Amino acid sequence: MRGDTVHRLVVLTTDFGLQDHYVGVMKGVLLGICRDLSLIDLCHEVPPQDVRSGAFLLLCSYRYFPPGTVQLAVVDPGVGTERRPIAVQAGPYFFVGPDNGLFSYVLQDMVREGRIEGHCEGDLFFPGDGCRAFHLDRPERWLKPVSGTFHGRDVFAPVAAQIASGWRLEDLGSPVQSIVALRWPMPEERSPGKVVGQVVHVDRFGNLVTNLRLGDLPDGEVEFAIAGVRIAGLRRTYGEAAAGEVIALEGSCGFIEIAVPNGNAAARLRVGSGSPVVAKAVELYNGR
Amino acid sequence: MRGDTVHRLVVLTTDFGLQDHYVGVMKGVLLGICRDLSLIDLCHEVPPQDVRSGAFLLLCSYRYFPPGTVQLAVVDPGVGTERRPIAVQAGPYFFVGPDNGLFSYVLQDMVREGRIEGHCEGDLFFPGDGCRAFHLDRPERWLKPVSGTFHGRDVFAPVAAQIASGWRLEDLGSPVQSIVALRWPMPEERSPGKVVGQVVHVDRFGNLVTNLRLGDLPDGEVEFAIAGVRIAGLRRTYGEAAAGEVIALEGSCGFIEIAVPNGNAAARLRVGSGSPVVAKAVELYNGR
Amino acid sequence: MRGDTVHRLVVLTTDFGLQDHYVGVMKGVLLGICRDLSLIDLCHEVPPQDVRSGAFLLLCSYRYFPPGTVQLAVVDPGVGTERRPIAVQAGPYFFVGPDNGLFSYVLQDMVREGRIEGHCEGDLFFPGDGCRAFHLDRPERWLKPVSGTFHGRDVFAPVAAQIASGWRLEDLGSPVQSIVALRWPMPEERSPGKVVGQVVHVDRFGNLVTNLRLGDLPDGEVEFAIAGVRIAGLRRTYGEAAAGEVIALEGSCGFIEIAVPNGNAAARLRVGSGSPVVAKAVELYNGR
Repeated sequence: MRGDTVHRLVVLTTDFGLQDHYVGVMKGVLLGICRDLSLIDLCHEVPPQDVRSGAFLLLCSYRYFPPGTVQLAVVDPGVGTERRPIAVQAGPYFFVGPDNGLFSYVLQDMVREGRIEGHCEGDLFFPGDGCRAFHLDRPERWLKPVSGTFHGRDVFAPVAAQIASGWRLEDLGSPVQSIVALRWPMPEERSPGKVVGQVVHVDRFGNLVTNLRLGDLPDGEVEFAIAGVRIAGLRRTYGEAAAGEVIALEGSCGFIEIAVPNGNAAARLRVGSGSPVVAKAVELYNGR
Repeated sequence: MRGDTVHRLVVLTTDFGLQDHYVGVMKGVLLGICRDLSLIDLCHEVPPQDVRSGAFLLLCSYRYFPPGTVQLAVVDPGVGTERRPIAVQAGPYFFVGPDNGLFSYVLQDMVREGRIEGHCEGDLFFPGDGCRAFHLDRPERWLKPVSGTFHGRDVFAPVAAQIASGWRLEDLGSPVQSIVALRWPMPEERSPGKVVGQVVHVDRFGNLVTNLRLGDLPDGEVEFAIAGVRIAGLRRTYGEAAAGEVIALEGSCGFIEIAVPNGNAAARLRVGSGSPVVAKAVELYNGR
Repeated sequence: MRGDTVHRLVVLTTDFGLQDHYVGVMKGVLLGICRDLSLIDLCHEVPPQDVRSGAFLLLCSYRYFPPGTVQLAVVDPGVGTERRPIAVQAGPYFFVGPDNGLFSYVLQDMVREGRIEGHCEGDLFFPGDGCRAFHLDRPERWLKPVSGTFHGRDVFAPVAAQIASGWRLEDLGSPVQSIVALRWPMPEERSPGKVVGQVVHVDRFGNLVTNLRLGDLPDGEVEFAIAGVRIAGLRRTYGEAAAGEVIALEGSCGFIEIAVPNGNAAARLRVGSGSPVVAKAVELYNGR
C-alpha cells in the first residue's frame, strides 16, 4: 500500500460515448471496489477507436490533476486480442489502459520537460528514471468472468480502483521494459525559417489546434499559412480579432491554434486533423 | 433507518439529455437532502419516452453496482397522469421511478437467475420472495409544490435520496401487490434447431445487441442470419475478424451481438432495434 | 473563512461541450485545490458563446441547490479581453464567472422574489441588500501562468474551489458597485387582455419554454397563439392532451410551455427561441 500518497481520484477517458451504459457500469465497478473514490470524466466522446485523439486529450490534461491521480483510459480497438493491459507510473501520476500508445504523448511530454526519463525506439517507448510500466497479468485482481469485449469494466476499472486505493503496481502486474509508442508528430523545419506543422485536434468551437509550440516557430515576425489563407503574427486573445477574422494564437495547451473568434475556423477553412500548417519568418519569405 | 446497509450511492438514468438543466437540478435536490451521496450517471441519452430502451440499459448494468445502490430512473411519458410513482427493493438493490415497466427487465432477469421470486401475468409483475414494491403515496416526503411535468425533480429525486440515506420504503409509500411489466422479448424456437431473436439495442459503435443468450442457441455449430447476411459461428473477440467482416459474438451483457470490428454493423446492414436475427443449427440447415 | 456555512458543492455550467478535455481539466483544478469538493454538472451544451442561454439555465436551477452552493459558469466570448472576472454572493448562493450578464437573470429573479435587493440601470445591475459583487483582481489566487483563452481553468475554477472551501470573497477580489446586466425579456401587455411574450428556450423534448408566468396572463379564460396555431387554455400535465395535440401548460420552471406530448413542438411548429407567443383573454378577443 502507498499510504500517505493515496489520492483516491480516478479520471476516465473513453470512446464509449454517453448513449450506452458502458461508462456508468465502469463507475459502478470502481465504487464497488473502493467506495470513497472520486471520479472525474475527462472525455467519453473520443472518436471510436481513435487512439491518437485519446492520447492528445490526455496530453493536454494530465498536469492539471493532483499527484496520485489515476488516469483510466480505454480506447481499445484491440480488446480481447493479445494486446496487453498495462499500468504506468510516471512521476506522480498513474495510467491504466490498453498497451496501444494511448499514454505515449503524455510520456514523451514528460520526458521533454525533464520530469521523467525514457526514449522511443521504433514503435516502442522504454521508460527510464521516474517511470515504470507493468503488464497487468494477474487475473485474480479482475472481475470474473472477463468478457472478450469489455475490458474497461472487467480489467481496467478494477485495477484502477485498486491503484487509487493504495495497491502497489507490483501486486497488480509484472514490470516490462517497453510499451507501445505512438510518436508525437514533430513539426519539421523544411528550410531555414520555414516550419511545417499540422492540425492535431479540432475542438468544439472549431478551433484548429496544431502541433506547433512557441519554441518551434522561426525567430522574428511570423506568418502562418493554412488552406490557402495567410495569417500575420500571433494574437494573445480571441478578443483582439476583428469580426470574422482568422487568427493564430497560443492556445490553452501551449500549442498554436488557428481560430475565428465567435466563429468556427474548421468550418470556415474546411480543414480538420492532419491538415498542414506552415509557419514562416516574414523577413525571409516576405510576400512569397 | 437501515443503518449498516446504507451505501449512499444513487445511479441516474433518464431521457432528459444533457442540453438542459434537468439532470443537474435533480442532483441538486439529491445533494440538498443528503450531502454525502455519491451520484453516478448511467445514461441520460435514452431516446425520448422510450421506456424499453431505459429498461434494457438497467438490465445490462444493475449487477455491476454495489449492494444498497439506488437506481433512480426517469423515462416517464405519463408524468402527471394517474401512473403511480413507485419504489422497488429487489435483493440488495433499490429502484425508484414511474410505474411503467422501466424496472421490469431487471426484475425478470433476477427471477430467471433465482435471486428473487416473482412472476408476470398479463402486463403486471407480481413480486415474490426477496422483492417488494411500494406505491409512493406520501407527498410530505416530496418537494413542494409538485409540478405536473417534472417528477424526476419533485418526487423521485427526494425519495431516492431518502432511501440512499437510510429511510425505509415503508415510510415512503404503501406496499402494492403488482406493478406494471414490460415483457422481455423472448427468442422463439420456430422449428427444431432454428431460433428467431431480435435486435434489442444498437450501441455507439453500431454493434447490434440481440435478445439471444448462449443458452438460447441450437446445439452444435450455429449460423446466424440477419438482413440477408449469413454469419458462421461465434467469435470470442472483435480481434478475430478479418477487416470489414460481419461477425457474431457474445457481448459484454451476455447477449449475442452482431458486429463489424472497427466498423459499424448497424450502418453496414442498415438494421436497427426490432430487426429479426435467426440462429440455425448448421447440421440441420446446411446451405439453406 | 466562512466556517460553518461551507458546503463544498460546486456546480458547473459552460459552453465547452463534452467532446474536448476542457470540463474535465477544470474539475482537476477544482479537486487539486480542495480534495473533498462535490462537483455537479448543470450543463456543458450551452450553445457556443450564447450567454443568454446560460443565464436561462441558471435561472431555472439555482433555487434547487443547497445554501452555500457555488455556481461556476463559463460562457465567455470575451475571454482575455478587458471584461472582468467576477464573483457574486446573492442570498445563500455564490456565483463565479465572467462579467457579461451570465448571472443577471438569477439576480433579477431574486430581486423579484424579494430575496435580495438590487436594480438594473441601462446594461448594469447594482446589487443592494443581500447581494455583493466582487471584481476578481488577485492573480495570486489563480493558476500560473494564466492563458489568454481558458480562464475557466486558470481563473474561475481556482476561485470557485477557494470559495467552496471557505475563503471570503473579500480575500479573492475587490467589491464593485455594479456588474453587467442582461435584461430579462419582460412580456408586454400590448392592449387590454393581450400579452405578448416570446420563446426563451427549446428543450430536448422540443418543448417551447416562454417568458410568460401565470401571473403575466390576462384574467379569465386565455387563448394562446404561436406560429399561426391557436391553443385554448392551460393543461396541468402532458397526459391531458390528445395524441399529437399542441398544448400550453405551466412548465417545471414556472414558465408557460408550448408542448406536443410524446411529440416535438419545436419541430411541429417550426419555431425556436425568440418566436413571439401571444396570450389573449378569450372574452375580449373571442374569435379574433
